[in-house]
Amino acid sequence: MGSLGDFEFPQSNALLNIAGRASNDNPLDPEEFRRQGHMVIDFIADYYKNIEKYPVLSQVEPGYLKKRLPTSAPFYPESIETILGDVQDHIVPGITHWQSPNYFAYFPSSGSIAGFLGEMLATGFNVVGFNWMSSPAATELESIVMDWLGQMLRLPKSFLFSGNGGGVLQGTTCEAILCTLVAARDRTLRIIGNDNIGKLVVYCSDQTHCAFKKAAQIAGINPNNFRVIPTTLSSSFSMCPKALRNTITADVEAGLVPIFLLATVGTTSTTAVDPLGPLCDVAKDYGMWVHVDAAYAGSICICPEFRHFIDGVEGADSFSFNAHKWFFTTLDCCCLWVKDPSALTQSLSTDPEYLKNKATESKQVVDYKDWQLALSRRFRSLKLWLVLRSYGVEKLRGFLRSHVKMAKVFQGFVEADNRFEVVVPRNFANVCFRISPSTVMTKSSNGVLGEITNSNDISSPRTKTKMGMVNEVNQKLMESINGSGGIYMTHSVVGGIYLLRFAVGATLTQESHVIEAWNVVKQHAHAILNSIPTTQ
Amino acid sequence: MGSLGDFEFPQSNALLNIAGRASNDNPLDPEEFRRQGHMVIDFIADYYKNIEKYPVLSQVEPGYLKKRLPTSAPFYPESIETILGDVQDHIVPGITHWQSPNYFAYFPSSGSIAGFLGEMLATGFNVVGFNWMSSPAATELESIVMDWLGQMLRLPKSFLFSGNGGGVLQGTTCEAILCTLVAARDRTLRIIGNDNIGKLVVYCSDQTHCAFKKAAQIAGINPNNFRVIPTTLSSSFSMCPKALRNTITADVEAGLVPIFLLATVGTTSTTAVDPLGPLCDVAKDYGMWVHVDAAYAGSICICPEFRHFIDGVEGADSFSFNAHKWFFTTLDCCCLWVKDPSALTQSLSTDPEYLKNKATESKQVVDYKDWQLALSRRFRSLKLWLVLRSYGVEKLRGFLRSHVKMAKVFQGFVEADNRFEVVVPRNFANVCFRISPSTVMTKSSNGVLGEITNSNDISSPRTKTKMGMVNEVNQKLMESINGSGGIYMTHSVVGGIYLLRFAVGATLTQESHVIEAWNVVKQHAHAILNSIPTTQ
Repeated sequence: MGSLGDFEFPQSNALLNIAGRASNDNPLDPEEFRRQGHMVIDFIADYYKNIEKYPVLSQVEPGYLKKRLPTSAPFYPESIETILGDVQDHIVPGITHWQSPNYFAYFPSSGSIAGFLGEMLATGFNVVGFNWMSSPAATELESIVMDWLGQMLRLPKSFLFSGNGGGVLQGTTCEAILCTLVAARDRTLRIIGNDNIGKLVVYCSDQTHCAFKKAAQIAGINPNNFRVIPTTLSSSFSMCPKALRNTITADVEAGLVPIFLLATVGTTSTTAVDPLGPLCDVAKDYGMWVHVDAAYAGSICICPEFRHFIDGVEGADSFSFNAHKWFFTTLDCCCLWVKDPSALTQSLSTDPEYLKNKATESKQVVDYKDWQLALSRRFRSLKLWLVLRSYGVEKLRGFLRSHVKMAKVFQGFVEADNRFEVVVPRNFANVCFRISPSTVMTKSSNGVLGEITNSNDISSPRTKTKMGMVNEVNQKLMESINGSGGIYMTHSVVGGIYLLRFAVGATLTQESHVIEAWNVVKQHAHAILNSIPTTQ
Repeated sequence: MGSLGDFEFPQSNALLNIAGRASNDNPLDPEEFRRQGHMVIDFIADYYKNIEKYPVLSQVEPGYLKKRLPTSAPFYPESIETILGDVQDHIVPGITHWQSPNYFAYFPSSGSIAGFLGEMLATGFNVVGFNWMSSPAATELESIVMDWLGQMLRLPKSFLFSGNGGGVLQGTTCEAILCTLVAARDRTLRIIGNDNIGKLVVYCSDQTHCAFKKAAQIAGINPNNFRVIPTTLSSSFSMCPKALRNTITADVEAGLVPIFLLATVGTTSTTAVDPLGPLCDVAKDYGMWVHVDAAYAGSICICPEFRHFIDGVEGADSFSFNAHKWFFTTLDCCCLWVKDPSALTQSLSTDPEYLKNKATESKQVVDYKDWQLALSRRFRSLKLWLVLRSYGVEKLRGFLRSHVKMAKVFQGFVEADNRFEVVVPRNFANVCFRISPSTVMTKSSNGVLGEITNSNDISSPRTKTKMGMVNEVNQKLMESINGSGGIYMTHSVVGGIYLLRFAVGATLTQESHVIEAWNVVKQHAHAILNSIPTTQ
C-alpha cells in the first residue's frame, strides 16, 4: 500500500496521515476539489496515454486483490496521493482494458472525452432527478436530446415527444426490456384479470440476448411460457416470421395469451438482424407488444446507408439502443423510445404524498420516475448532449463508419487466408470467423475433408466428433490469443459452430491496431495448427 | 447559445466551429482529454464556490429549456467552451441544487470530493464489469469494500462474504428491493409451483417507501395481495408486530402464502424505525423473507451510539442502505447485503454461451450480474473505496454526527418558539415540524383551541375542518419558503398531519446555514400567520 505516497506505512489504517486529515475537513471544499480533481484528470489522461502497455485482458488470478488490501476500512484518512498509488499498483492490474485500442471483445464500451465530461458534470451537480421538479433541467434536457436522437435515427414521429410518444434514458437494455415487458403484461392483465398471469406467453429467438429471459423471470412470466424460435445458419440466424406465427398459433389454440415479442437488430453472437416488418405484422395480428432491441447496432442507423436495418420499426411499440456501447457515451446510457408512454406509466407510476408537487399536478411535465424501474435517477442526458454537440452528426457518422471500414479490413484478411473462414456475413463492425474445418481436417490428416465444411448438420455422431475437433482448435486459438494479453476477443457458439468475434469499436482503435491484431491471430493459429497431432 | 464561447452563432448547428473540429478527431486523445478535463474540473469547483448564489429550488417554468435549445442536434462539432457556456446559461438555472448548503429537502444527496473522484476513475476506466473476468478488480474491490462496510455497521457475519453471505452494489434501493423480492418469490414458487404466483402475499406499513409497491407490481405479485399495516402517531409511525401477525394469520387462513416483509429503519416521511427484532420473529414463524430498508438511516449506524436502531437485523434475510443518500458517495450507490446469495443467483442468473469463461466455471469467483437486475454494471465500488479511505471511519462518523447536531439545533429553535411544534420525535438528522394547531386557531379567533391540538383523530367532520385549516397554513408556509429560493424543504402528510421536513445532510451545510434557515422559516411564518383572517 501507499507506494506512490509521501510516506510508507506498515498498514494503511494503522497510522494517522496528517496531510489527508487537513485536506478533508470539508468534503466538498471547492479549492481542494480543484486540486484533487486536476490530479485525477492527469491520472486518467496518463492512463489513456499508456493503455497499450497493459495486457488487454487482465491476467490476475481469482482472489488477487484480497491479498493486497487490508481486511478493514481505515480508521483515519488517507491522502489522495496514497490512494492513486494504490489504484495504479493494485487496481489497474485487475482491470480488463475496455478502452484499449486492442480491445475487440464482446461489444465495445466506447468512451469519449465528451461522454466523460458529461458524466463529470452530472456527478458534480449530483441531482436526483426523479421528477421534473427535483431538477427541471434534467428532465427537459433528456426529453429534448431523445427527440434529437430519434430524429437522427429517423424513428417514426410516433416515437418522439413531438409525436405523442417519447424517449427516456435507462441504465441498460435489461431495464428497458423489463419496463416494456411489464407495460405489455399489465396492458393485457387489465383486460383478462391478474389471475391469468400464468397464461401470458412471450417470444424471442435463440439468438435473443439473455436479458430477455431474465426480464421475463423477474416479471413473473411462467418459465414454461417463454418461447424461443430456433434460427439457422442458412438464414444468418435471424428470426423467421413464419415460425413465429406457427408458435403463436399453437399457443393461442392451447388457450394461452401471447403478449410480447422481442426482435433484435444486431444480435450478440453474430449481429444478426431480425426482419422487423414481417415480425411486426405477425405480432399485430395478435395484439402483441413488439420491442426492438438494437443495443449494439442502433447507433450506426444514424448513417443513411445503414438505416434500412431498422426498416419496419414503425410497426413496433418500443425501440432501444445502448449509447454506452457504440456511441461514445460512457456506461450506463440506454436510449428507449415508446409510442405509448401511458402504457409505461400505468405500470410504473408511484404517487406518494412526499413527492406530490404542483408541477406534477399540472400535468404539464414529464416525471421520468414513472418511465423506469427505480425512483432515483442520474442526470444522464448531459453526457449524451455533450457527445452530440462535441462531435456533431457528421463526425459521429464518420467515427462509426471508420469502425465498419476497419472491420472490413479485418474481414479481407480472413478471406484472403485460406486457413480461415468468415462464418456469417458481416453486417456492422463485428467479424465472426474461425479456422476452417478443412484446415483442421487437413492438419489432422483425417482425410475426410469437405464432408463437414460449412455444414450446420450436427446430428450424426461422426460429424459431431469432427465439429468438436474444429471447435476445440478454435477455442484453443481464442484462449491462446487472450492469454497473450496483446489483444482481447471473445467467442460464441451458434448452430454448433464455435466462432471468434472480432468486434471493432473501441474509441482508440486505428487501422494499425487491426493489422497488428491480424498478425497476432495468424501467429497463434500457426502455433496451434502445428501442434495438432498428424495422426488421429 | 454560446454566450461564453469565442464566437457568437445565430444558431448553434448552423456553422462550422473550426476549433471544435480540430480537437475532436480522436475522441479519446489523452492531451485533449487533459485540457478539457481540467476545464470542467474548474467549472465544477467554481459551481461549488458560487452555489449559494442560486435559488436552491429551481424557479423555471415547465418547457423553459425547449425555448432555449435548437430543435435538432448539431451537424458539426461545437467547442467545449461553447458547451460549458450553455451549461452555465441554460442548464444551471434549471437545476435544483441538491449540493447547496441550503438544501434541506427529501433526503440529502451528499456528494464529496472522494465520491466524485471515484466516479471519475470508474468513468475513465469505463469497464463493464458484469462478471469477474470482464474486470476482476471491479468484482473483487466490491466484495472487499462491502465486507469493510458490513463490519463498520457491525452487521452479523452471516451477511458478509467472510460468513458465507455477501454484499453487492445496486443502483438504488428500488432495485435492491426488487431483487430480494424476486428471490423470495421464487424460493416459494420452487416449492408450491409457478401456477400459485397469485397466492403470494407481501407486507409493509403505510410508511414504507413507494418503491416496494412498485417492486411488487413489477414482480407480478397480485395487487390484491399487497398488505399495508396502518401505523399511528402514538407509536411514532412504526410498524406494529402484532398487527402484522394478525394480518398474516388472516391471509394464511384464507389459503394465501406470505412471502416477504419489508421493514424500514428511517422511513421517508418521518424517519420512523420499525422494530426489527419482533417483526423478524413474526416473519420467521411463517418462513418469510425479511428485507430491511435503511436507505437513509443505515449510514449513521456506523456510529456506536446509533447502532441500536438496526438491532434485530440478525433475524433478517437482507439489508440495504444508500451510500448516495447520506454517505458522501455520489448517485447511484445502494449497498445490499444478503445472507443467502444463492437465493439471488437462482432467480437472476444467466449463462449464455458468449459469457462463458473458465473463471466462472471454476466457481472460485463472484459474477455480480447474477446478483442484480441488469447485465452491465459500472465500477461503483471505486467511489465507495475512495470515500472510506479519504475520510476514514472516524471522520465519517464525525461528519454524520455533525449533521445530527445541526438537526438538534434546529429542533431546539422549533421547541423554543411556541408558535411551532415538533410533530414526531427526531431520530436522526431530520426534524418534522409545523406551525401548531393552537397558533393557527388563535390567529383565526376560532376560540376552540386545544380540542384538536396533538390529535390524530381525523374522524369527526368538525376536527377535519380544523385540521384542514392547520394543514393549509403549513402548506402555505412551505410553498412560501420554497418559492423564495433561499432554502428548500419538502413536506409529508402522516396521520392526517401536514408536516414540514427539515433534513440536514447536504455536505456543505454548516451551523450558520441552519440558523439562517430558521430565520427564513420564522419570517415566512410571520407573514403567513398575519395574513390569516381573524374572523371565520
